[in-house]
Amino acid sequence: MAKNMIIGQSGGPTVAINASLSGAIQQAMKSPEIGEIYGALNGLEGLLKENIIDLRASMRSAGDFQRLEATPSMALGSCRFKLPNYPHEAYDKLREIFRRYEIGYFFYIGGNDSMDTVLKLSNYFKECGDDVKCMGIPKTVDNDLPVTDHTPGFGSAAKYIATSLIEVAHDSAVYDLPAVTIVEIMGRNAGWLTAAACLARNGAGGAPHMILLPESAFDPDAFVSKVKELQAKTKSVIIAVSEGIKFADGSYVASSGTSATDAFGHAMLAGVGGYLKSLLQDQVGCKARAVELSVLQRSASHCSSGTDIREAVTIGARAVELAAAGETGAMVVFRRICENPYLVSCDKAGIGDVANLEKTVPASWITPGGWDVTEQMDRYLRPLIQGNPPRFEKDGLPDYFALDKTIVKR
Amino acid sequence: MAKNMIIGQSGGPTVAINASLSGAIQQAMKSPEIGEIYGALNGLEGLLKENIIDLRASMRSAGDFQRLEATPSMALGSCRFKLPNYPHEAYDKLREIFRRYEIGYFFYIGGNDSMDTVLKLSNYFKECGDDVKCMGIPKTVDNDLPVTDHTPGFGSAAKYIATSLIEVAHDSAVYDLPAVTIVEIMGRNAGWLTAAACLARNGAGGAPHMILLPESAFDPDAFVSKVKELQAKTKSVIIAVSEGIKFADGSYVASSGTSATDAFGHAMLAGVGGYLKSLLQDQVGCKARAVELSVLQRSASHCSSGTDIREAVTIGARAVELAAAGETGAMVVFRRICENPYLVSCDKAGIGDVANLEKTVPASWITPGGWDVTEQMDRYLRPLIQGNPPRFEKDGLPDYFALDKTIVKR
Repeated sequence: MAKNMIIGQSGGPTVAINASLSGAIQQAMKSPEIGEIYGALNGLEGLLKENIIDLRASMRSAGDFQRLEATPSMALGSCRFKLPNYPHEAYDKLREIFRRYEIGYFFYIGGNDSMDTVLKLSNYFKECGDDVKCMGIPKTVDNDLPVTDHTPGFGSAAKYIATSLIEVAHDSAVYDLPAVTIVEIMGRNAGWLTAAACLARNGAGGAPHMILLPESAFDPDAFVSKVKELQAKTKSVIIAVSEGIKFADGSYVASSGTSATDAFGHAMLAGVGGYLKSLLQDQVGCKARAVELSVLQRSASHCSSGTDIREAVTIGARAVELAAAGETGAMVVFRRICENPYLVSCDKAGIGDVANLEKTVPASWITPGGWDVTEQMDRYLRPLIQGNPPRFEKDGLPDYFALDKTIVKR
Repeated sequence: MAKNMIIGQSGGPTVAINASLSGAIQQAMKSPEIGEIYGALNGLEGLLKENIIDLRASMRSAGDFQRLEATPSMALGSCRFKLPNYPHEAYDKLREIFRRYEIGYFFYIGGNDSMDTVLKLSNYFKECGDDVKCMGIPKTVDNDLPVTDHTPGFGSAAKYIATSLIEVAHDSAVYDLPAVTIVEIMGRNAGWLTAAACLARNGAGGAPHMILLPESAFDPDAFVSKVKELQAKTKSVIIAVSEGIKFADGSYVASSGTSATDAFGHAMLAGVGGYLKSLLQDQVGCKARAVELSVLQRSASHCSSGTDIREAVTIGARAVELAAAGETGAMVVFRRICENPYLVSCDKAGIGDVANLEKTVPASWITPGGWDVTEQMDRYLRPLIQGNPPRFEKDGLPDYFALDKTIVKR
């Protein structure tokens, strides 16, 4: 007999999460094992409050799915709620809700923390003897989930970052003056996003000229020397830097100089960009400016990757397919079968092998001294940014999709 | 007998400047009055150093023109050099260079300051009795040039700002928590760019909920009250703010709280975004964050407006057409003939009527209290962001054009 499914989204936004949601709903509609298709608003937090909607009712046409896939951020909303260890009242509450809504399939689209939730719930339901299949669907712009070759959401962020880098380099090159432009990119511990700046080297004087990842310790003196060396060769030096770079002692560069306070007495952080800019003005005396790509790198659907969106749909669908076939306690992953031509398969990994683990950039993909990434990085990244997905416009601007958020009570 | 022309670019980058350059070159190629087509690298500064290139040689095919039109920033480079008042040695130097290169036509693509240069040079050559036609071609993301209905470069920046606003609003709405997001937009004295945020109101909860322009004095207490009022209605409040807003005493909000210094002893500016964020954390106690759209708003060709690029080509061509017909001391302008359907003509204005003058947002287009813009602004802006121009990609990223910068000596 068919059982109902529920799906939620958790963690930070990407432009590919809704594509995975779309894939999951489309596959569920084709699966006789699945009855109602519920969505949890704001992840587990909303689920516990029974903020549950009917996704079958929301998606009325093929066009709705295409528009959902082209929409950034999270149509179901998100939460930062991490399921506590068992025993905790949340487990009983969830079990009771799942029974009442006759849930047999639980899907969670998220990153490391969300996979921890999938791990805990799949173990819990197994222990209880309840037949609830729990599957994780990966997403994160950080690309730091293990086992999977890469994560949906990352390719589009990489494309936006490389595109922006090229444009910032064009903007920076107009004056006949030596200048340094620092572009600050997301990623506290893993440097994948910042590394994507290397893709921009198809013009505008080979920018970026330096790529600083959190995987390499930052040495201010060596940095200043390196900038001087670059300035001897090029007038407009472009530096891509991760927000998460650290000094040799492990402390974040972004947190240095915290003695400053603003007009309201709050501590003011210069951030990595501000710090490097000041360092260069002080030690090199050159014109320097800092650009922060900010939240747009994870929400710019207008610049998404066709490959990324297509793969996100596929991986969402595959999770539902596997769960309907009886799989549980797993996350769907990509395995790269071939680099050229690019070919991936969509497989599964034990959730215990991914939850709470972080994949950083391998040391062998970083050049000696930590100033750049190797050719291998470009080969790895290049296929992930190819193509443009269908985009929808209204009155000259993106026409994004919103779900009907009518709550369904049972 | 045909005379040669020279064209230069000056001031800050936009994504439409190269389109005007393309239009000018294409028209010159069709004009029997014009012989050689020279480009001055880095504007007047480069011209004085005779950094002059041959544009006819650079543009080899129709495809080259299309790619140049799709390329952001300034293919010829820029300068911030303002021609001093006559008498000054620069005049004699320029006259000598113009004679040697047999220049009969001078075109300068730029904003207010560049039009001042065109004014001075056209007067100077008239006084000398030299037959050199001097024409200004407008560009500025700020849209602050008088007479012309709008300025090339502005429409694309407006489209990028509105697109980004929609995406930032999607990003900000994911958590079930009250939060304020402040989006800082360029414009020191004129609020046109910030006003373009109003175009984003086609979804995502009507964001932005507040638009603060430099044309209205900023009152911190009234602002805090207004934010509280908005928070009673919506969870995620989005505020678009111009970098140039000022207190009632005329001082820049961005400059307040300058007592803070960074790790190197440099004064640290929180900027407008940082100031408003701190103000809200202090007075409202809510989660607040600031996003700065930065230089991408003037260089994001990947998100340019079809109307803007097409018009920029037209206005560049029109300047050459007018000069070839004997016009001098003028800037080409757009006159809006009809709003719906949108129709503009491409006319000329006396350079004295535009040089050094600034067009700000009319008071009647700002709502009482200065919290928003009126419907008239949307009607004015909407046609300027329509359509997408041809875009060129290579390996998943924009494929921008570069001129051959071989110097031509005469």
